[in-house]
Amino acid sequence: MRPLRDHLPILDWGRRYDRATLSDDLLAAVIVTIMLIPQSLAYALLAGLPAQAGLYASIVPIMLYAVFGTSRALAVGPVAVVSLMTAAAIGTVAEQGSMGYAAAALTLAFLSGAILVLMGLLRLGFVANFLSHPVIAGFITASGILIATSQAGHILGVGASGHTLPEMLSSLIRALPQTNGVTLLIGLSVTAFLFWVRRGLKPLLRRMGMGARAADIVTKAGPVLAVVASTLAVRVLDLEAQGVRVVGAVPQGLPPLTLPPLSADLVGALIVPALLISVIGFVESVSVAQTLAAKRRQRIDPDQELIGLGAANLGAAFTGGMPVTGGFARSVVNFDAGAATAAAGAFTAVGLAVAAVALTPLIFHLPIATLAATIIVAVLSLVDLGILRRAWAYSRTDFLAVAATILATLTMGVEAGVSSGVALSIALHLYKTSRPHVAEMGLVPGTQHFRNILRHDVRTDPAILTLRIDESLYFANARFLEDLLADRVTPDCALRHVVLMCSAVNEIDLSALESLEAIAHRLDSMGIALHLSEVKGPVMDRLKATDFLAHLSGRVFLSQYDAWVALAGPRGAAA
Amino acid sequence: MRPLRDHLPILDWGRRYDRATLSDDLLAAVIVTIMLIPQSLAYALLAGLPAQAGLYASIVPIMLYAVFGTSRALAVGPVAVVSLMTAAAIGTVAEQGSMGYAAAALTLAFLSGAILVLMGLLRLGFVANFLSHPVIAGFITASGILIATSQAGHILGVGASGHTLPEMLSSLIRALPQTNGVTLLIGLSVTAFLFWVRRGLKPLLRRMGMGARAADIVTKAGPVLAVVASTLAVRVLDLEAQGVRVVGAVPQGLPPLTLPPLSADLVGALIVPALLISVIGFVESVSVAQTLAAKRRQRIDPDQELIGLGAANLGAAFTGGMPVTGGFARSVVNFDAGAATAAAGAFTAVGLAVAAVALTPLIFHLPIATLAATIIVAVLSLVDLGILRRAWAYSRTDFLAVAATILATLTMGVEAGVSSGVALSIALHLYKTSRPHVAEMGLVPGTQHFRNILRHDVRTDPAILTLRIDESLYFANARFLEDLLADRVTPDCALRHVVLMCSAVNEIDLSALESLEAIAHRLDSMGIALHLSEVKGPVMDRLKATDFLAHLSGRVFLSQYDAWVALAGPRGAAA
Repeated sequence: MRPLRDHLPILDWGRRYDRATLSDDLLAAVIVTIMLIPQSLAYALLAGLPAQAGLYASIVPIMLYAVFGTSRALAVGPVAVVSLMTAAAIGTVAEQGSMGYAAAALTLAFLSGAILVLMGLLRLGFVANFLSHPVIAGFITASGILIATSQAGHILGVGASGHTLPEMLSSLIRALPQTNGVTLLIGLSVTAFLFWVRRGLKPLLRRMGMGARAADIVTKAGPVLAVVASTLAVRVLDLEAQGVRVVGAVPQGLPPLTLPPLSADLVGALIVPALLISVIGFVESVSVAQTLAAKRRQRIDPDQELIGLGAANLGAAFTGGMPVTGGFARSVVNFDAGAATAAAGAFTAVGLAVAAVALTPLIFHLPIATLAATIIVAVLSLVDLGILRRAWAYSRTDFLAVAATILATLTMGVEAGVSSGVALSIALHLYKTSRPHVAEMGLVPGTQHFRNILRHDVRTDPAILTLRIDESLYFANARFLEDLLADRVTPDCALRHVVLMCSAVNEIDLSALESLEAIAHRLDSMGIALHLSEVKGPVMDRLKATDFLAHLSGRVFLSQYDAWVALAGPRGAAA
Repeated sequence: MRPLRDHLPILDWGRRYDRATLSDDLLAAVIVTIMLIPQSLAYALLAGLPAQAGLYASIVPIMLYAVFGTSRALAVGPVAVVSLMTAAAIGTVAEQGSMGYAAAALTLAFLSGAILVLMGLLRLGFVANFLSHPVIAGFITASGILIATSQAGHILGVGASGHTLPEMLSSLIRALPQTNGVTLLIGLSVTAFLFWVRRGLKPLLRRMGMGARAADIVTKAGPVLAVVASTLAVRVLDLEAQGVRVVGAVPQGLPPLTLPPLSADLVGALIVPALLISVIGFVESVSVAQTLAAKRRQRIDPDQELIGLGAANLGAAFTGGMPVTGGFARSVVNFDAGAATAAAGAFTAVGLAVAAVALTPLIFHLPIATLAATIIVAVLSLVDLGILRRAWAYSRTDFLAVAATILATLTMGVEAGVSSGVALSIALHLYKTSRPHVAEMGLVPGTQHFRNILRHDVRTDPAILTLRIDESLYFANARFLEDLLADRVTPDCALRHVVLMCSAVNEIDLSALESLEAIAHRLDSMGIALHLSEVKGPVMDRLKATDFLAHLSGRVFLSQYDAWVALAGPRGAAA
């Protein structure tokens, strides 16, 4: 068992908490709270949930993460990609807007929390490693496109449905004639304003003499300004009469206590999506947390992060929320605003609780189109089609993984997209290692070094074949080696010795051992001896535990040069 | 495109065929024919098919393999494991003994043939590599146990059903009271006789002065003797009246032309079993073929073998047969009897055709128990529980793969068994490579060599951390390296340089590159430089195509000693 302190990081930083830290944390919390109010509402909308679910999901979960999480700056709450995955998952089990829909979101958060805590306790964080960077990059880009498209309907003032790009586009095109002009005007103005805030406001503030950090923080408050302005416009000009859809009545008060329904049917339908949401949320969150921690020479513990994020999701499940994870944008703002400990997160939670109690009546007239514009501008920064070009330049396999993930996500939806990306990248890796690079080696004259005969002018001996295998030998390439040797050796009647140079062989598994036995046996029946050279210590230990070496027709040489001298005889040694 | 000769090996050996080869091939064919008659009937019984299906599956398929296959000695036909898998697969879509059951066997043979030919044309033979030796060994052993158990019912003269060991055993135990004494007597006598033939007959014949090869061949004819004797006993003593079940009427004549039914439902239900049967049959067959070919310095082409086996299965589908592959026992007999070319197979086919036309009335009174005894004695030689001990001694991972495959096959059936074995061995391999061995290195005093600081007395420098990574860097271990460095570096305030020794890194994929970038970035923000040493040529070429090296805070050194001299300064160089 690990000590309790490892499971409760709060015991570590809590002991040393002082007044200076408190004021840093309070300032950061105020800034993040202002940023989070519109964001929480928007991501609830994206998940198809009532606006308050987004607020609730940012209160108790943040507090629980502060107790169990290891990052000092990570801000936990609803994020774009997880909200999209939530919509896709619960869209299959309930009608959007129904009671069952919001309840299913609780179940999803509960399952996701349980999976994360379990993975943390069993120290299964390594599972996340199988999401390769190309798959994540492709998935995030495709998700950004899907999210932006799904929100385009709100900008036009029409409903758009579907979970894949073709479905969404065809539903948008069919709905185009019903476009609401006023909504479109609000949507486009807010979008343009937010883009300008991102691109033009910060340089302007700097020119006006504001410090870099302050300018950055003011810029992040742009969405709040858009929310206030468009809400006032709707209220003053009575735009609802023109058909502009607004957030409407949001219950006023603290998060309610809720019980996620856990019927076998619901759990069965949501367990796989919950697993994907957990792993993707964890990967995103850990990478942000690790980057921020390194900047202050702090460290995070990935297994404890699983428990922190799991607790946050369980908290969301019992307080009317939705699945959450550590968000990139909000964490960076939190960090830049000077958050020193996880207490900043707790203060943010208090700020949002105050908002839930006091501010909800004020957002009655907030147009949906404004929230949609907030989402679109936020997610378009996630879309990075350049990854295709960079992957292509680096390696064809990585390109294939990115391209397949993007294509599958856009055309088959988020779950199929990420699953096929993972399966493909594992398959491609296995395929590559199943056909390892094997070089035929010769002696560099006047030295004891051996090099590839295709690239260097080296000495060889017609009776000796030296092959260097550039991969661990395991089941997927064991038979490859058998075939390769059969092809190379059979027609060559001068051959008396085959030497396998094992300097890059980190492991020989049982399949490879049996293949080596078969190779030795077959070579033997052709009158050819099999030798090994430069076998690594741990590999040799393994071989010594078997009777392979006893039956070997040839010998094991410490170095390839020893093998050459012994097998090529006086001619070889004279080199 | 490959030349036609590659796809039709018969064009190669056919041109040089002469009288001496003919007499060798004819002799081998006579011996194999005698051995195959009872075997074909028995494996049809095992698959739950009428006896003639086994004979038919050994006629046209052998001829087609002779035309398309590359092995000179491989004998193709029904084999034990494939027959068991056939029974499991078609048992799910049709009632045993019904018209649909035999028809489904044709569909399965057709699908299996089509998959094999397709894999051959697309050169997908490497797929078979993912069946590791431990999985195959576990699967064959468990299949042997399942087959022997399934035949025990016939020895007792009762019906036994089920596709898993618990099902079979409980059905056997329930049927025990109905045991037929005479059947049991025949079954046990034949079993005892066949075991004695295997163990005792050959030494006896040798003592009587018979040559080793002749004694071997006579021994293989043991089952024929058992068939003749027990058939005569039933006939003469009228044992059918005592309740002894016999083969009964077998249609007399050449194989019929049949059309495998290909309804969407049937194809959908059988496609996965067909894939498993194809891959397992291919792996078994290629390994026999390769071993026999090496003995005569011939070679086989695995991709063309797929086409040969595929053609054989298609032939079986259109001539009333069942799925086939290259059998171990019969191929060895064929080889030992002197078969020189694939024509021996064609002559065997003629011999079996004659049997189908002329001998079928003679086997009317052949007791089912005799065939069951033949199967039991044959498959018990496949059962090798010693693999568990050998795998345990070699490595825990290989043991886990064997044990899981045996357990899953026995308790969940053949398909689930082999699938979970494959999935587990891939998962275990990925898990191992996701946590590579990383050694902290130091300089061996007075040399330019670096060794693990835990195993050797070496020099280190508090400002320099040298890590050797014993694995290619790819997505599954990219984050492992990030975590490892964060853990090791963060608390160490004296550190100024980290050197990654890449001598065993055969590849760096895009995920690992991005992790290296993140590591470099994080180290940079702690004031630590990241260096690389001993990077392999192809890996360096890749890195040069990116801007990684341009942003790297440290340098890339050709050798680790260069790195040491440059970073440790005069103190280091003086070593």
